[in-house]
Amino acid sequence: MSKPLLQIALDSLSLEKAVADAKQAEDVVDIIECGTILACAEGMKAVSTLRALHPNHIIVCDLKTTDGGAILAKMAFEAGADWLTVSAAAHPATKAACKKVADEFNAAHPELKVKKEIQIEIYGNWTVEKDAQEWVDLGVKQAIYHRSRDAELAGKGWTAEDIELMKQLSAKGLELSITGGIVPEEIHLFKEVKNAKAFIAGRALVGEKGKATAEAIRAEIDKYWA
Amino acid sequence: MSKPLLQIALDSLSLEKAVADAKQAEDVVDIIECGTILACAEGMKAVSTLRALHPNHIIVCDLKTTDGGAILAKMAFEAGADWLTVSAAAHPATKAACKKVADEFNAAHPELKVKKEIQIEIYGNWTVEKDAQEWVDLGVKQAIYHRSRDAELAGKGWTAEDIELMKQLSAKGLELSITGGIVPEEIHLFKEVKNAKAFIAGRALVGEKGKATAEAIRAEIDKYWA
Repeated sequence: MSKPLLQIALDSLSLEKAVADAKQAEDVVDIIECGTILACAEGMKAVSTLRALHPNHIIVCDLKTTDGGAILAKMAFEAGADWLTVSAAAHPATKAACKKVADEFNAAHPELKVKKEIQIEIYGNWTVEKDAQEWVDLGVKQAIYHRSRDAELAGKGWTAEDIELMKQLSAKGLELSITGGIVPEEIHLFKEVKNAKAFIAGRALVGEKGKATAEAIRAEIDKYWA
Repeated sequence: MSKPLLQIALDSLSLEKAVADAKQAEDVVDIIECGTILACAEGMKAVSTLRALHPNHIIVCDLKTTDGGAILAKMAFEAGADWLTVSAAAHPATKAACKKVADEFNAAHPELKVKKEIQIEIYGNWTVEKDAQEWVDLGVKQAIYHRSRDAELAGKGWTAEDIELMKQLSAKGLELSITGGIVPEEIHLFKEVKNAKAFIAGRALVGEKGKATAEAIRAEIDKYWA
């Protein structure tokens, strides 16, 4: 297992704010995410602009794709996204359509250093046994586990059940990105999630304290992942 | 029960194509939808442009909101959307946040002829007893029932189970918009869904045959809803 990466989610309402935040954080993150809010506000030019400004970062497009998979995946990958989020609630045909677009893109571009991938973003009612098994059977390698932003605002904390589910997903071979109010003090909660791919934070990595927070998260990661 | 309305979903990749399609269909539809693909491609200016061009139509913004509910709802309603789609898979806190924004908007603008509303778009694993009851308990009045676009492409037709679930949702008081390859010849399938709010079609309402298709759907609606 390699060490978890650090990802900034850009969820501002304007591209101007987003590019400024990305510029400030570029030295301390591995992955730059065009968040759902930014994508819905500004459209795909948000992805293409971030791609142009940050050619050496992994770019995630967080559409939480729920339908129209082939078209949305093509649009996001062509705009420059490396990874695209797909809602766990999407029909299996939608997930398969997104995966197919990624696979075809990779086949057509063997020179890509970062392969196009889809990430199943876990929302709604689901089980490890049935739903996660379906994702694995489809060949999906990544999933995103989080507290919903709204649940977080409503005060919901990380629970033992969250950690247990992450361990089960990890045991199935899925690499997990973990998000939802990530702070340095809570990184230790996830130490048993061997397949932790990335920690995602947003506002915590922006502003005056952003760099210090990123360093503190990295220090915690170094403690728990060899 | 009033008669079901007719809604065009604009899912083109460019605003130019979308406004042309909307202009062509404006006389035959009641509702103009900024589809997910269009919203992700062009951002909220797609909604604000459609609002400006069609002040007397109901405008739907189809974000399939899955998280960040308060911000996305505010953004969509301020851009001019009357109704916003929210994924059934969203956390209950997300649905509540969207509903609250709509309610506050309506309270601040008593002059609105069309009230801001959210529509639960049904995706993922759900039950009438638990999930739909939650939506009703939250005060949601509308839901969207469909074949996923990708399922449709994969050849999945409307089933007796679909109709039965729609009847159960309708019996709970939810007004249903029905979508997924709607054609005049299949409108009769939904005749027992008393609370049918709208039929949504996309490409079927565009182009040379669009007007004739719209008229054929209306004729079928007239047969089955008094």
